[in-house]
This record gives sequence, C-alpha cells and structure tokens, in this order.
Amino acid sequence: MIELFLVGIGTGNPAHVTIQAINQLKAADIIMIPRKGEHKSDLVDLRHQICDELLGEDAPPLIEFDLPVRDDNKSYLTAVDEWHDAIAETWQNCIQAARKTITTNITHIAMLIWGDPALYDSSLRIASRLTPAPIITIIPGITSVQALTAAHKITLNEIGKPFIITTGRQLTSNGFPKEVDTAIIMLDGKCAFQSLEQDLYHIWWGAYLGMKSEVIIDGQLSKVADRIIQTRQQERAKHGWIMDSYMLRREKTRKKLGKRTVLHKHEK
Amino acid sequence: MIELFLVGIGTGNPAHVTIQAINQLKAADIIMIPRKGEHKSDLVDLRHQICDELLGEDAPPLIEFDLPVRDDNKSYLTAVDEWHDAIAETWQNCIQAARKTITTNITHIAMLIWGDPALYDSSLRIASRLTPAPIITIIPGITSVQALTAAHKITLNEIGKPFIITTGRQLTSNGFPKEVDTAIIMLDGKCAFQSLEQDLYHIWWGAYLGMKSEVIIDGQLSKVADRIIQTRQQERAKHGWIMDSYMLRREKTRKKLGKRTVLHKHEK
Repeated sequence: MIELFLVGIGTGNPAHVTIQAINQLKAADIIMIPRKGEHKSDLVDLRHQICDELLGEDAPPLIEFDLPVRDDNKSYLTAVDEWHDAIAETWQNCIQAARKTITTNITHIAMLIWGDPALYDSSLRIASRLTPAPIITIIPGITSVQALTAAHKITLNEIGKPFIITTGRQLTSNGFPKEVDTAIIMLDGKCAFQSLEQDLYHIWWGAYLGMKSEVIIDGQLSKVADRIIQTRQQERAKHGWIMDSYMLRREKTRKKLGKRTVLHKHEK
Repeated sequence: MIELFLVGIGTGNPAHVTIQAINQLKAADIIMIPRKGEHKSDLVDLRHQICDELLGEDAPPLIEFDLPVRDDNKSYLTAVDEWHDAIAETWQNCIQAARKTITTNITHIAMLIWGDPALYDSSLRIASRLTPAPIITIIPGITSVQALTAAHKITLNEIGKPFIITTGRQLTSNGFPKEVDTAIIMLDGKCAFQSLEQDLYHIWWGAYLGMKSEVIIDGQLSKVADRIIQTRQQERAKHGWIMDSYMLRREKTRKKLGKRTVLHKHEK
C-alpha cells in the first residue's frame, strides 16, 4: 500500500514553502522528482535546493525520474489523457526501482508540486491511475496567481465581485469572459491577450514569479502589450524557459472604483 | 514613513504559515492584531499562538486594536466603504499609540491576514487610505479555497477548463455562472446553494478548514444540502462562529470525465 503526499511548494522561492510542507516531506520515505529536460534543469535544481535548505539532515532520498513526452499531434484532451497514463506508469516503475535499490519498505512517497496541487496540476489525476489506489494527502502551496498579486500589490477581486481563472487557450477560443470583469490567465504560451480589443483592458503580467529573476509589467493593455511580448521573448531566450501568468480587468470597471483604490496607482 | 507588511497566514492552522511569512513578521517593529469581539476570540488567540510558536524570541510586540462595527443598514458598498475609512483611522491611532508607549521609531508594521491578502480581504484597500501612503509588502498565504480542495482531495479546474470564484450574494442574485462548470463560493452566511436547482450540482463543503475542528461534507447537492445546513447550524452554535466555503460543479460535466478521475470517488 502506498501513501502519496502531494506537497505544494510555491512558485520557485524556497521561502514560499509552508511549515506543513516541510513536516510532510520529512515524513516521507522517498521524494520523487521529475527531470524536465535540460532547458528546465534550473527547476530541478531548485527542487534539490528546497530539500537541501529546508529539510537538512531529515531529507529523505531524492529519486529522479524521466517525464514522458506528450504527443501534441493528437487532440489536446487525448494527448493529455495518454500522457497521464504514461506518467503513472513511470511513477510505478520509479517506486519499484527504489524498493530494489534503497529498501523494500518504501510506502510513504512525497512529490514536490509547483504551486498548489489543486490548480492546473495533473498529479491528482495521475495518482488516480495507480493500482492499488494510494492513500493521498494534499498539502496546499502558494500559487503563481498569489505570487502575481503579491508582486503587483493588487487584489484578485473587486469588493464582493467574482473573478475567473482560465487558460490562454480558453481566452483565444472564447474571448474575455462575459460574466466577470477580472480574469487570471494561466498556461498561455502564445500571449493570448493579443486577441482582445486592447483598449478595454488593464493587464498585470509577471514571469518567474517569486523567483530572483521575477519580471513584472502592468498598464493599459494597448500600451504595454508589445513590451510584454518583447520582454517574454528576451527572458525566454536568456533562461531557456519561461513560466508566466497575468491578470486582466476591464478598464471601465476600474474607473468606477474611485481614486482611493490601490489598483489605481498605475494609472498616473 | 510607514512600511506595512500584509502577511498571509493561511486559514487557522499555524503550519500553513510560510518561511517567507515568518521572516517578514520577525522583521517588523510591531504586529497589529484586531480584536474581533468575544465570539471570535479563538481567532485572536490563534494569531497569538502563531506568533508564539513560530516567531519565538524574535516576536515583535503584538498590539491589539478594536475593529469598528460595519453599519449594515446602509447599502453594501457604502457600508463597506465607510467601514474601511473607520478601520484606516483605527490603524493610524493604533500606530500613534504604539509610538508613544513603545518607541517613537516604529516604522515597520506587520499585520496577520487570514488566507491571502489578495482574496476577499480588505487590507490593501484600507492601507490605500493611510496618509502618507505607506510602502507595502505582500506575503501570500494559503487560502480557504486551497484548504478546501486539499481536504477533499480535488482539483479546482477540470483539464484546461476555467472556474470562477464568487460570493454567496452573487450566487443568490445571478444564479450559477453560465460560462463555467465549476464555482467556488465564499462569504456565504446564508447557504446560497439553496437557490439552485439541486439535482444539477455536486458540492464539496468545508468549515474551519485547516483547523483541528475542520468539518467537510460532499455529495450530490440534492442529497447533502440539508445535512450541510444542519451541520453548519450545529457547529456555529458549538463554536460561537463559523467560517466555511464550498465548491460546486455541474453534475453532467462530472459524468463526462470518465471513471478514472479522482472526482468520482464520492459518487459510489
């Protein structure tokens, strides 16, 4: 029987980690870490750094495994589904291997999850493919959404108002959501905000949120869209990879808020 | 000049606190804590407990202040607006008093924020009323949304899909959002889910999330709505207060997901 700890570790700043996460990681027999290909090796390094800095001598052995590659020639949902199958198999093999090379008594397995296991993360879906079904413990972590709002010193919601969290694909396909004035966009590799009527929105954008290399830009979308696209290209070339997200809010709503809201500090 | 640290502390479990939050709190000259009336005194106690347990000898002085009462006879936005004015004045007075009684050199002031300062929290709006404008630092914290999904072992989004975060008032006024299949409801003192056609939704509900007294219920809304209402009343009577939130998802969408998703474990 396996007990699987899915531990949210925040967005790349070791100080994002919670006391609960540290305690849960220390309680594991092994920690499984994906290799993500060379271009993202600084992310793997960061996982090692988190374990070294925060777990010290109590750190369980770290076991690296190779993530399968997703076949993006298929439809999105099929590609994701098959990819999750393949990852689940990799996890099983990794656990079997660890039982042979370390000790047969491995039952408590931790995984370090970027952000929070509940937000655009597949670990729970992959875990549900394991047989027999593992006992699962979830430890929440700081998400890039929270790192974004902290960096810009803004709130997600206007007073008593709703907001949506969605993806670049959805924004391109369906336009800006009609029922809300605020949308957070994630998983957007193609600057989907270009498809919008740019005069109507304010954007708060950020990359490498929470990390030392954090970059943020905000302003009326029509004024800063080009700068964001350019910055994104430059930063991606520099690091070899990029993770970014952004918040959009309808301009007309922002003006209604009055002079005193913090949101207005960027409008000067 | 004041530097204000708005520090997210999670939802009542001291272990939700991040390393970053601990470091920021230790760097403050004072920590300001609201008294919330007797019935919520365990929340004030919990703030003290967090400081005692996690800051130890490095804990700055804790200064309590009385929160003004909101005048709910006025319209919601007016009541909130005037209330924020009154709280800002209380903060100013509290800081002045601390400068007289402790030391005149108080400039770095920390506040412990339930959840995350970006999510249905007014601290940023109140801070924007201070004169002169303070320098603000935001430290993200685990929200009750994340504690809810961790407790139920669910994800917020379906694969590549959007979700909305909204309030009980909005759900009652506008019904279930049309553009999404998943909604998280916060600030709902009146079980607004009663206004929905209950056969169509699954609910994952939780109160005192992250705390020792955590209670969770989930199931098809028509089957568990009464139990949630009853449990909510009982728990509120027992503790003298309650904080709860919940996720709703359209049932038809859940069935499309196939047998393997974790979301289905409750449907047996």
